[in-house]
Amino acid sequence: MKNYKEEALSMHRKYQGKLAVVSKVPLETSEDLTLAYTPGVAEPCLKIKENPDDIYEYTSKGNMVAVVTNGTAVLGLGDIGAAAGLPVMEGKALLFKRFAGVDAFPICLETKDPDKIVETVKLMEGSFGGINLEDIRSPECVEIEEKLKKICSIPVFHDDQHGTAIVVTAGILNALTLVGKKAADITAVVSGTGAAGSSIIKMITNLGIGRIYAFNVHGILSRENSSEYNRVEKQVALLTNPMNETLTLREAMAKADLFIGVSAAGVLDEAMVASMKKDAIVFAMANPVPEIDYPVAKAGGARVVGTGRSDYPNQVNNVLAFPGIFRGALDVRASDINEEMKLAAARAIAGLIPREELTEENILPKALDKRIAPEVAYAVAQAAIETGVARKAITPEEVREHARRVLE
Amino acid sequence: MKNYKEEALSMHRKYQGKLAVVSKVPLETSEDLTLAYTPGVAEPCLKIKENPDDIYEYTSKGNMVAVVTNGTAVLGLGDIGAAAGLPVMEGKALLFKRFAGVDAFPICLETKDPDKIVETVKLMEGSFGGINLEDIRSPECVEIEEKLKKICSIPVFHDDQHGTAIVVTAGILNALTLVGKKAADITAVVSGTGAAGSSIIKMITNLGIGRIYAFNVHGILSRENSSEYNRVEKQVALLTNPMNETLTLREAMAKADLFIGVSAAGVLDEAMVASMKKDAIVFAMANPVPEIDYPVAKAGGARVVGTGRSDYPNQVNNVLAFPGIFRGALDVRASDINEEMKLAAARAIAGLIPREELTEENILPKALDKRIAPEVAYAVAQAAIETGVARKAITPEEVREHARRVLE
Repeated sequence: MKNYKEEALSMHRKYQGKLAVVSKVPLETSEDLTLAYTPGVAEPCLKIKENPDDIYEYTSKGNMVAVVTNGTAVLGLGDIGAAAGLPVMEGKALLFKRFAGVDAFPICLETKDPDKIVETVKLMEGSFGGINLEDIRSPECVEIEEKLKKICSIPVFHDDQHGTAIVVTAGILNALTLVGKKAADITAVVSGTGAAGSSIIKMITNLGIGRIYAFNVHGILSRENSSEYNRVEKQVALLTNPMNETLTLREAMAKADLFIGVSAAGVLDEAMVASMKKDAIVFAMANPVPEIDYPVAKAGGARVVGTGRSDYPNQVNNVLAFPGIFRGALDVRASDINEEMKLAAARAIAGLIPREELTEENILPKALDKRIAPEVAYAVAQAAIETGVARKAITPEEVREHARRVLE
Repeated sequence: MKNYKEEALSMHRKYQGKLAVVSKVPLETSEDLTLAYTPGVAEPCLKIKENPDDIYEYTSKGNMVAVVTNGTAVLGLGDIGAAAGLPVMEGKALLFKRFAGVDAFPICLETKDPDKIVETVKLMEGSFGGINLEDIRSPECVEIEEKLKKICSIPVFHDDQHGTAIVVTAGILNALTLVGKKAADITAVVSGTGAAGSSIIKMITNLGIGRIYAFNVHGILSRENSSEYNRVEKQVALLTNPMNETLTLREAMAKADLFIGVSAAGVLDEAMVASMKKDAIVFAMANPVPEIDYPVAKAGGARVVGTGRSDYPNQVNNVLAFPGIFRGALDVRASDINEEMKLAAARAIAGLIPREELTEENILPKALDKRIAPEVAYAVAQAAIETGVARKAITPEEVREHARRVLE
């Protein structure tokens, strides 16, 4: 697409935004109105008053996700404010619908106070089936998610933290299979310790990766310097560098089998990639320009390279994860999206590429592959059931079938 | 419809609620996704960041209304809680779409604290084009609306207060024409001084009605007893009964040309109607059972009778007003819905029945009449422009044309 910027503007102008709210029920005759509105509508209200869980039977709650932002970390644009973030939130809502049949609605909150966001979401919880936090800066986003997960009875998921983590974990699983290495034997370098970086570090720790070096813009995170860090970075420093090693990024790269970048353009050069262990794996996901360009990383000898860009192989795209995750969580009426569910999602995404089809250029499925959401939803539902957070009697097979049906 | 209660339940169950969120833009190919989401979506975000008013050009804000409730006064059901009110809010959202092409979304807030509601709505204001408050009990609803109108730059409208007031005012205008009386010459009795009652009293005062007696469940409101009243009732007492008259409802009815009931079933009997002045007008709008049944009021000699029920003539139905009001207010990008706009809406509704078609059984248009919203939107837009609250250069004729087009 040649001039996508102009085209994007004219498309948004033409339709005056992207979202519409429509009826699922007939509304032509006065009889229709009697059922959908007064006096008929009093009946479902009374049922819900008697038995609060009936809200899932008689309203759209069970399929409705709030996409909540305060606009402090929108795409790579930074703190542009809640209102200026609305086009992204509308887009996100459309992806929920397009990729998993989930209804989603943007809630843009004009505040930087984490407690106000927590309080507001809690007040609205009743009419939503799930909460997707979006484009809220770190470390506030971590605090907000933690607090909401404690007080809400519906799943809360910050996609910028976990979406990328889940998809890159899927990529790592397949890349390790391809190059024949085991997680426990490898060394990873993570550049970027914001929302995504910290979640990635937790997730690959759970995967059993042997050694992780974590860097922010000032250098390696260590317990010694931790007074400079925010709360999230402090945890990362404790987890990854309890012995206070003091490597530079260049030095760490020479020890690494795997690089994961969620930081900024230009952090890596070809020589750093060339210094990595044999069969190096590089995920350079800075947005919109990666830490190192795909061809440069390949020229440096990396065997598997993934970026956030759709014009190179192995795009790490959140849309592989969040639609299916919410589809699964909503369908089993999960009270949470826990670590087991996230890892199950990563394994399901990885599993969509059979061993014999794995190549350097094919370690992740393509976004438009209609098999993804049903398989992710299946795996997430199963993990929810196994970990006891599912509140509805439904089998993972039924969840998969439902996900397939909504995509037809 | 024989068993509408069972049918309403099964309809809500069948569709699992009534609302869906859908895309207005194509989303099939990866090119579509490039425009609607990353990287294209960054462009409208940047435009809005540069010029906040561009949010109307590039997002759905300009056509999106929040239907906000805390569930404290849902239909005639009372305080059933925010979540149990969701079926009504979904229904209301559908009426906005069905009758005026307005997108609307329910926001159910689990709090009884007026300040929390005010604060929450203010935080969300940026992504909505208007706020419709719904089913919040009196007097809190009046306080919430007043505060929000002061701090919000988008229109705020509490339908339970003003929707009924506007439609009954339209009915009164036509009934007075029919019976050949002037507003200044008549005496009105209003039973019920909650959200709707107090707004009705303000509106018919603006209409110039000669004398108004206002009653709550304890009797006539007067300045003397005002310590027993809430803030809203105190204002009504001052406005209607500064001389502390002490009539009973029965005594007041014997002086009345017009009865307006927004109170409770059984407040009137046939003898009270029979005691009214010649060519009496009775609007008995208690929900779901009127203050007096239509046939009983007719038997008592009332010439024009209106109720909230759809199975009798002259149904006073909010749906005649709020869709067109918001259509007009949104299209001119009004910063407020002021008294002039409300009165313009009432006159537009009344004007839909030409003098020669006015009969005792035909003083208000029917809800499904597609002329209503365009005419109301036209009148509201004109009043907004005249009172200086319109912020977009558009003519009332263009607004009417738009309203017609969205209803096609």
